[in-house]
Order: sequence, then structure tokens, then C-alpha cells
Amino acid sequence: MVGFEEMRDELLERIEDLLKRKQYTALRDLLADLEPADIASLFEDLDEDSIPLLFRLLPKEPAAEVFVELDPDAQEMLIRGFSNTELKEVLDELYLDDAVDIVEEMPANVVKRILKHADPDTRKSINEILKYPDDSAGALMTTEFVDLKRDMTVEDALKRIRRTGTDKETINVCYVVDPARKLLGIVSLRTILLSDEDDTIDEIMETHVISVTTLEDKEDVAQTFSKYNFIALPVVDKEDRLVGIITVDDAIDVMEEETTEDIEKMAAMLPTDKPYLKTSVFETFKSRIPWLLLLMVSATFTGQIIARFEDALSAFAILTAYIPMLMDTGGNCGSQASVTVIRGISLDEIEFSDIFRVIWKEIRVAVICGATLAAANFVKLMLVDKMIFGNPITITVALVICLTLVVTVFAAKVVGCTLPLLAKKIGFDPAVMASPFITTVVDAISLMIYFNFASLLLGI
Amino acid sequence: MVGFEEMRDELLERIEDLLKRKQYTALRDLLADLEPADIASLFEDLDEDSIPLLFRLLPKEPAAEVFVELDPDAQEMLIRGFSNTELKEVLDELYLDDAVDIVEEMPANVVKRILKHADPDTRKSINEILKYPDDSAGALMTTEFVDLKRDMTVEDALKRIRRTGTDKETINVCYVVDPARKLLGIVSLRTILLSDEDDTIDEIMETHVISVTTLEDKEDVAQTFSKYNFIALPVVDKEDRLVGIITVDDAIDVMEEETTEDIEKMAAMLPTDKPYLKTSVFETFKSRIPWLLLLMVSATFTGQIIARFEDALSAFAILTAYIPMLMDTGGNCGSQASVTVIRGISLDEIEFSDIFRVIWKEIRVAVICGATLAAANFVKLMLVDKMIFGNPITITVALVICLTLVVTVFAAKVVGCTLPLLAKKIGFDPAVMASPFITTVVDAISLMIYFNFASLLLGI
Repeated sequence: MVGFEEMRDELLERIEDLLKRKQYTALRDLLADLEPADIASLFEDLDEDSIPLLFRLLPKEPAAEVFVELDPDAQEMLIRGFSNTELKEVLDELYLDDAVDIVEEMPANVVKRILKHADPDTRKSINEILKYPDDSAGALMTTEFVDLKRDMTVEDALKRIRRTGTDKETINVCYVVDPARKLLGIVSLRTILLSDEDDTIDEIMETHVISVTTLEDKEDVAQTFSKYNFIALPVVDKEDRLVGIITVDDAIDVMEEETTEDIEKMAAMLPTDKPYLKTSVFETFKSRIPWLLLLMVSATFTGQIIARFEDALSAFAILTAYIPMLMDTGGNCGSQASVTVIRGISLDEIEFSDIFRVIWKEIRVAVICGATLAAANFVKLMLVDKMIFGNPITITVALVICLTLVVTVFAAKVVGCTLPLLAKKIGFDPAVMASPFITTVVDAISLMIYFNFASLLLGI
Repeated sequence: MVGFEEMRDELLERIEDLLKRKQYTALRDLLADLEPADIASLFEDLDEDSIPLLFRLLPKEPAAEVFVELDPDAQEMLIRGFSNTELKEVLDELYLDDAVDIVEEMPANVVKRILKHADPDTRKSINEILKYPDDSAGALMTTEFVDLKRDMTVEDALKRIRRTGTDKETINVCYVVDPARKLLGIVSLRTILLSDEDDTIDEIMETHVISVTTLEDKEDVAQTFSKYNFIALPVVDKEDRLVGIITVDDAIDVMEEETTEDIEKMAAMLPTDKPYLKTSVFETFKSRIPWLLLLMVSATFTGQIIARFEDALSAFAILTAYIPMLMDTGGNCGSQASVTVIRGISLDEIEFSDIFRVIWKEIRVAVICGATLAAANFVKLMLVDKMIFGNPITITVALVICLTLVVTVFAAKVVGCTLPLLAKKIGFDPAVMASPFITTVVDAISLMIYFNFASLLLGI
């Protein structure tokens, strides 16, 4: 691979040097060799004052692509510096869905200026798309696609694609609509090109079309792409009229965002929509503190269980030393089960109706895991903790610890696999039922079992 | 969306009913209306004996697509039942990269039969691709792409695409090579179609091509797709000769697999490559037990810290009750930081060189989180735990607990953000440095701090 990351520092130096020596032609040539995404990433590390100048050195089309890849702050700064003509030029080059993304991030006065200088059709379409909820297919789509009529011949279709294709986000898939704009079928450019010139679109189009409605959740849209290997997906309104298309690059962005959100939720954070290094300290704090507070307060229960068994603990003080091991192992077992199930749910591999299969599987896994861990722990207790560390461990104490371990593992696995599925069923986000939450529940269960075994076997 | 999942049960019933009544024409029509991925998913829920019959009802092309989507067990069963002619027909319809995936999953005798009935060119290509390491770009690519010469006119190019395009995985991007097969440029079908018939490929091709080498890690390949919004990526050998291409659908599969692996590692599991419900109990056990054992044994340290402070604990038994809260909060804070950094690393948003920025940010977040948690906890201790539960809490005890909390949060955040970056630097997988590992480290730190504050402030 042409390793951009390895060349990055060298490129930055060269650009800064050329800027200082005002070698603008050399700069233009250097930028022309780079991918838009890479130029945008370089801009982020350069002095802010030099960005407008560099941006103006780019030819129109790559300039628009670079603009899309920049972060909102840099976009705003550039727009504020643009003359009206420059703004219009950039807007004309943007794909509609990218223009909408930018409009969504800008403050009101900038949005007003953008809409004023967009051409009337674009303005109308932007306003149209802005109406859809943020996480819907409608907000993700572009209205720039190639539409064909069913009675066109392949020759007609190719003419139409050649005439209107320049402004479309993709021409690799074309959409066949009736006069009321109802979606009749799709036909790939490939099929068109490999068909006879006299064939009609009607004869070659695919009529079993998978489509999504404007209000479909964008996470489901992304799953549809990954399931069916599409490169574009039509979006229809409630009357089945074609209103837009979503392309695979946008679906990939959604997949990455949704996965990041899931991972954040699993680690007890509220999702943020900015990259870590761009989030302010206070925003990071705000996304982390709610769950920390909640989980801290719920640890009160665990604490009260210990407080209740204080006498037992002072009679057999050594029991306290194994509380962390029992809690951590329970937490780990629970999070293994819950995280596996949560990922399975988000990949559509596990449904609520699988709940009994899942529980039955986790029970069997729990039994072997519990037995293995208890056996290993028994040996460790008698050989290492007793003989080497000199802990006052009797066979009965070791039994109490190991039996608790078995039951804890069992409870952790069952709770861990059940809670995410139940959450899904009642319309909660399963990802919230991951490690931290499960750990708190399993801690309490584990300690109850511990002290009950202790009072049973040690007579306290 | 045409909700396949909602229709699933009804479809299964109708298929089973039609099978029983031997209504094969109706079955054929019903299957013709479905997407290959959906048919494959239905097959998994149907009686195994009916699969070969249903499969034979499918037309050649969708049959091959369904075949690709089936799980390896079903594929093997079908292949064993195929006549030689049937096997050859399916093989001829498969794309090369799919054929390779299937060959990789089959037992040796089935592979032998597949290779025997593939045509010589395919056989050669399959053997070629099988040579690349499993997780490399080479293993992911297909050798079926459209290659053009630089001196062709657009008209020549279109003729060549029409002549050779049927068997190619994609014709949306074409590759320009010299006689030694060195990659000179790429040109999209869109550009070709929107250009003048007399233009030469040389004039319209894009010469700044991002490519990957055959040995590039497939995770980096997937990142390249997501960064540059490509739909296909050329693969070159060490001499820069074009050997294959990777299409975006395969990149999406890699992204999902790699994310699942990361999530599994973060939850202290060894990655498995099969969906949860298809993994045997013993395989699940094997992927979970190593980390459980390791983490259980490392909890010995935490236990020994408690054992050492046994006397202090019996003097102030109430301190024991707050061990779970301190451990859990430390674990949660640590995993928030580590998981955020791990995800940032895998999305290429955070590099090792950012380590000081990351630590500085976590320090500030830790200070506000720690202060907030300590304040909330102080109020809870004095109002709820003391007044309502009657726990023997003095101001000094509350101070010990809250000060420990502040320092624990601080240590957890710093350790949590540092370890994944260090792991990355020394070539380890950062994902392993997630919650469970961090929790064990932070537990020990937290308890040490707790007992030291206790002996300092309570004089024990």
C-alpha cells in the first residue's frame, strides 16, 4: 500500500516549507497527488490560517471532496471565509447527502447563507431531507439517482445515463419508476451494458427489489447492506414511491458509528458522536458520569450484604480475602456471556425466540467452566495460599470458596445471557446490559451465596 | 422494507406444506421471489433432507448465490449429494473468491473433488489464492476483474467490457495495466460511459491509485475501504503487478468479523470464527476458560493485600462493606477509559504518539469524575448508610472511603488509557487490555490505597 501514514510527517514538513517559501505551483502539484481523505487529514495538523489558501489551490472537484472530509470546525471556518461565488462553487460540487450532513453541523447563520447560495432544486431537496429524523433512512439518503422508465430500450437508457449521470452519486444501479414515481424495479449498469441495445428495460430489470422506507432505522439499513451485499439501496415513502437511494459508503459509516456506540454502552458510557481526541473534557465527563454514579449507588446493596455478615467475617476473617476473586470471576463470566449475546443480537444472529437455546447452552458452558475453575482454585488454595502464603485455610474453608465459585459462575452466565435478550424484548438497548451492569447484579448474588455457604458449612 | 424477518415463519410453513404436497412448480415460484441470502437462511431452519431437492428447484445463478450463503455443513452435504455435472455447474457460476472460501472450509476429500471438476483456469487461480495467509489481502481477493490497456479508446474499452464482463465480480471499476501487468491506473465504468467514444483510456484514467499488496493485513484493507469510500481496491504483488481486486462486500464482512473479535477480546474471550449458536459448548468453553483462569489466579494478589490488612479490617469491620463499591467503581472507570482508547486505535483515530494528549485528557476527566463521585458518595454515606442503615460511619471513615475513591478513579483512568497504547506499541493486541485485565490491576491499586488511607487516618 502507498503508505500515507508513514509519509505523513514528511508531507506536513514539505507543505509547511513550501507555504513559507510561497511556492504555490509546487504545492498545487503536491496536493494533486493525494487522496481527498488524506488531504483533509493533513489540513487538521496544519496551521489554521493556511487552510483557506491551500483549499483554494485545489481543483474544484477534489476541493469539494476534501471539504466533505474536514471536521465541522474547519468547514465552518472555510465557509465563513468564502466569497459568495466560492461558496456556490463548492455547493454545486457536493453530493446532496453530504450537503445535508454539513448543514446539520453548522450554526444557524451559516446554514442560512448556505441555503441562500444553493440552487433552488438543491435547496428544496436539502429542506426535504432535513425533515427526517436523524437516525432514519431518510436522513441518510441522497435524491441524486438515475431513474429510468420501463419502456425505454437499452439504447435509450444509456443515452439518459450519459446525459444525466454526471451529477448522480452512483450510476452503477439505476431505478425504474412508473409515472407516479412508484418503484417498479432496479437494473444495474452492468446488466444494461451487457444486454442487447434493443432490449427494453422492462425485460432486463430485477423486479424483486429490497427497499427501505424513509423512517427505517439507519442501523437496520446498514444490516441490510451487509446481509445482501448491495452497493446501493432504494428508499421509498409510505406510498411506495421512490424518494432516494442510500449508497454503501454511507452504510459503512453507519456500521462504524453504531458499533462504536454499542461498545461505549457496553463499557457504561453514553455514546458521543465525535472522535475521542475531538471531544472536550467536559463532554467526556458528561458521557461517563451517569453510569458511574448509578453503579456506585447500586453497590450499596453489595455493601449491606457484607455489613449484615460482619460477625461471620470476623470469626473467619480469611473469607474476606477471597471476596475480590469471587466478584471478579463472577463479573468476567457474566460479561463474557452478555457481550457475546449482545453482539449476536446486533448482527441479527440471535433473536428473542432463541432465549431457551441460549440459556441451555450457557448452562452447559457454565457447568464446565465452573468445575474447571473450582478445581484449579482448590489446588491453588491448598498448595499456594495455605502452604506458601500461610493463609489459615481448612478443607471446609476451601470448599466454601470453591462451591461459591461454581454457583457464581452459573448465576453469572445465566444472568449474563438472559438480561440482554429481555432488554431487547421490552424495547431497551441490549448493549446497556453488558459487563458493568451484570457485574453489579452478579456481585450481590455471589456474596449472598458465599455467606450462606459459610454459615452452612462453617456453622457461623 | 419488505420485512423478510416478519414473514419468515409463514414462509417456512408454506415451504414445508408445498414440499409435503409435492407442489414443485409452486415451490419454484415461491423461491424465485426471494433473495439468495434469505433462501439460505430459510434452508437452515428446514429439514436437512429437503435441502437438495429445494436447491435443484433454483435456477443456476441464484442457486450459486444461495450456495455461497449457506453454512459450511450444508455446503458439504450438498456437494456430497451433487452429481459431477451438478458440481461443475455450481462451480462455474461461483465467483472465484467465494469458491476459495468454500474450499477452505471443506474436508480434504471434498476439496479434491471440487478441484477436479473446476475448469483448469479456475483450479489454477484457486490454488494461487490458497497460498496466501488467511488474514491477508491475497486470501480475500478475486482474480476476476476487467483489465484494459492505456492506448484503448473508450469504444474499444466498452467492447472489451461487454465481451469479458459477464464473469467478472465487478465491472464498475476497470484496471489499466501495461504488458508486464503493472498497474498504471484505474478508470470507473462511469467515467468511461460519460467520456467521448474517441477518448483514450490513457486520457481519462486516474493514475493516483491506492492499492494494497497481497500480504497486507485484511483489517487494514477494510480500514482503507472505510477511509476512502471505495467500492473496489486493487491488490498488487511485490513487483507492483496487478494480481487481483477486493470488493466492498468482502471488506464489510471483514469489518464485522474484526469488530466481533475485538469485542470478544475486550470481554476476556479468545475469538471464535463461528456465530454463537453454531459454536459447540466445548468450543465456547475453550474460548472462555483461559482468561478466566488467568484472571482468577491474578486475583490472588488482591486477596493477599486484604489478608495482610486483616487486623485493620477487624478493628474497623465496616471498611469491608465498601470494598465492592471501590472495586467496581475503579473497574468501571478503568474500562471506560480503556475501551474508548481501544476503539479509537482500531478506527485509526488514536496513535501511540498521542499518548500524552490522551493521558492529559484522562487526568482532567478523572479529576472531575473523582470529585463528583466522592461528593455524591460522602452525602450517601452520611445520609443513607449512617442514618437509614445505621452503619457505624464516622466523618473520618467517610473521608477514608471518599479519598480512596478519588485516587482510585484517577489511577483507573490513567492505567486504563495507557495500557492499550503501550500494548499497541510493543506489538500486542490493544483489545486484550480492556475491562477484565484493567479491573484486576485497578483492584489491587485501589485496595492498597484504601488500607493506607485507613491506617493513616484511623491510626490502625
